[in-house]
Amino acid sequence: MKQGVKIALLGFGTVGQGTVELLTKNLDVIQNRISVPVIVDKIYVRNPDKYSHVALPATAAFVTDYKEILQDSSIDIVVEVMGGTTFARTCIEEAIIAGKHVVTANKDLLAEAGPYLMELATKHHVDLRFEASVAGAIPIIRALYDSFGSNQITEIMGILNGTTNFILSKMSEDGLGYEEVLKEAQDLGYAEADPTSDVEGYDAARKLAILGSIAFNKRIFFEDVSCEGITQIDASDIQFGKEFGYTIKLLGIARETKKGLSLNVHPAFIANTHPLASVRGSFNAVFLRGNGFDEAMFYGRGAGSLPTGSSIVSDVMEVARNVVQGKTGEMKQFYYPQKTMYSSSKIESAYYIRMTVDNSTGVLAKVATKLAEQRISAHSVIQRKADNDTATLAIITSKCPHAYIQNLIDSFNHLRVVREVGSVIRIMVE
Amino acid sequence: MKQGVKIALLGFGTVGQGTVELLTKNLDVIQNRISVPVIVDKIYVRNPDKYSHVALPATAAFVTDYKEILQDSSIDIVVEVMGGTTFARTCIEEAIIAGKHVVTANKDLLAEAGPYLMELATKHHVDLRFEASVAGAIPIIRALYDSFGSNQITEIMGILNGTTNFILSKMSEDGLGYEEVLKEAQDLGYAEADPTSDVEGYDAARKLAILGSIAFNKRIFFEDVSCEGITQIDASDIQFGKEFGYTIKLLGIARETKKGLSLNVHPAFIANTHPLASVRGSFNAVFLRGNGFDEAMFYGRGAGSLPTGSSIVSDVMEVARNVVQGKTGEMKQFYYPQKTMYSSSKIESAYYIRMTVDNSTGVLAKVATKLAEQRISAHSVIQRKADNDTATLAIITSKCPHAYIQNLIDSFNHLRVVREVGSVIRIMVE
Repeated sequence: MKQGVKIALLGFGTVGQGTVELLTKNLDVIQNRISVPVIVDKIYVRNPDKYSHVALPATAAFVTDYKEILQDSSIDIVVEVMGGTTFARTCIEEAIIAGKHVVTANKDLLAEAGPYLMELATKHHVDLRFEASVAGAIPIIRALYDSFGSNQITEIMGILNGTTNFILSKMSEDGLGYEEVLKEAQDLGYAEADPTSDVEGYDAARKLAILGSIAFNKRIFFEDVSCEGITQIDASDIQFGKEFGYTIKLLGIARETKKGLSLNVHPAFIANTHPLASVRGSFNAVFLRGNGFDEAMFYGRGAGSLPTGSSIVSDVMEVARNVVQGKTGEMKQFYYPQKTMYSSSKIESAYYIRMTVDNSTGVLAKVATKLAEQRISAHSVIQRKADNDTATLAIITSKCPHAYIQNLIDSFNHLRVVREVGSVIRIMVE
Repeated sequence: MKQGVKIALLGFGTVGQGTVELLTKNLDVIQNRISVPVIVDKIYVRNPDKYSHVALPATAAFVTDYKEILQDSSIDIVVEVMGGTTFARTCIEEAIIAGKHVVTANKDLLAEAGPYLMELATKHHVDLRFEASVAGAIPIIRALYDSFGSNQITEIMGILNGTTNFILSKMSEDGLGYEEVLKEAQDLGYAEADPTSDVEGYDAARKLAILGSIAFNKRIFFEDVSCEGITQIDASDIQFGKEFGYTIKLLGIARETKKGLSLNVHPAFIANTHPLASVRGSFNAVFLRGNGFDEAMFYGRGAGSLPTGSSIVSDVMEVARNVVQGKTGEMKQFYYPQKTMYSSSKIESAYYIRMTVDNSTGVLAKVATKLAEQRISAHSVIQRKADNDTATLAIITSKCPHAYIQNLIDSFNHLRVVREVGSVIRIMVE
């Protein structure tokens, strides 16, 4: 039996440091659980001087050439925590070919090339694990593979991006505007200087692509996910939502029905009683439906040094167990049937519409006529005087395909009494 | 490579039927995920005629002697879904000794003899899995073993009993009394004719013992858990709780600190913003804290034919994979250090106290003096006239050990102005 499992890190940023910190802090627990110690050996960084203040385990040393790791036959597992899709991909591919098991937190790379990397790993009989790539500490990938493997998953609905959930929670709790809260999030380090990837939903879309691939056993990539961000959400929408009993969230929604697969990221109102509604601040959560377990939700930290490290170390422990028992290289995905996409424009949803209209009699009748023309009912309406000339109209519609709502909005825009359609937000109903 | 994995069932009630239904319904998905089919072979029942209306898979047949299963060398996995602790224990022990892998949903047996059975399984190099024994479809056991295995778990706080959560949710939502809602739950089949095990917290305590054993890697049994039920909860407590911003839940709480291990089941108020507060009706949820992932919560169905079947089939799939790859018999627990229990009376908590007092001046001063004598602060007080003679007093205290509160209640009971201390309920604060 092996006396220990040696790992090497590629990268040593926040997540890499969290990984090493947890391995050090929980040394005994980990060794007791997997029967051998996990030894941190080489750590690849470009410039070791940058990390001279960080305490390393006695067994660890920096290297500035990643090939030293690939050529070191004593290293069992390579942990990739650099991020990026070019150099990281090269390193991971070479590591797999060199017979190393790989644990990675790299969602960008997995959303771009996950299925290929998994095939490569299978071909070379090594393990590839990536629990930390989606929703930080939440063990959603293992759950989809194993715990819910006995089910046909029908729906995934996730709060997959902590930055936008922080922004929307803050807007909702403090009644503040988007720009103001974004600035605060940037000052606190919760949002990046260029927040595009978060606020436009791209980050959530990458994670949804990874979850969808596993849940539905299909080749799903980032570009399969349609995306709408939160930049258009107004404080007044959140306020109206509250009056209707809703909370706003940026959701990643993946569904598989007989008609096909749909993958969408967009802001949505959910009922205050829905389990996802209680997910506040920078937390993440994934709500699932399956044909056996019915519904389930996992909630936890979506980012951060130790939480992300927690998932990485759990992956390392799983692979280490396999290494010790000589059981590595088990293929997790077995078939990739052809996927049929179901067009976003056909997905039915109830909608919230906010618009500025003339503050005059007969306006509601004109608006209602347009709704009737599209065979859409208004379930609730709030009309509120904005100033002498204008009023704000907030409407909750019946369920209809997205294409119908687009037609409706077009027709509203042709009404002289409608000054502006301010917001159109989906409502998640059973 | 094996052409299929054969399983036999002991028992064929709701859960057994759900297991077979899911195996049939998701035949293809399951086979694709584990590479071989799972074949349902013998099903042990006392009286097969009872199940003549249930469609069986073509491969399955009833037997009335469980030894036929143990003697059938083609059967790989025995699924125990009879319940009970005597005959079920005999069957499981004999199955293990006969070299069969065992999957069970039997929480009573595991809380009574889990560690022994696990040792027996390890000794005989077979797998023993029991995901379905706690919280139905929620994969909390696998999470504690694997996903959060990289952490030292510091706290488990669970809504582990669907019946009591249904009762408390209903009392809270509809403002009804305990007896009335219990009767409704019994009529709906959510509560048993003798509801003792649920409403006194014994069922939750058994599940907490199982979770605690895994999380803290200690030998923990049912009798290590201190237990308080929900029968004393009054509709007025729930109403006062709402005014203070709290929701009432029956919680199973296990904590490990340097001072020792504490395991308690009792009703408690939690803040409306806590993730557990949104867990309504018969759903279960487990909230965890660990030194890496920080906090996490799993939510889902805690009972039911298909949800429980979902966990059983996932266990069967895991074991089947091990069988196919010749990897069974991995010991999951490696050491059982001595446990130190931390006395319930020392646990600090804030408290809610409701009492009936004389409706006269100076009463509050007398009550406040008693609080001060025990060095307990009143954080909030609501005094409300009940009738001409009496008033109701609801007090939220500062954090203090349980023993102090008991002294306080004793001193209240000696005050002439206090007619009755109606309720004392813990409040979970950070």
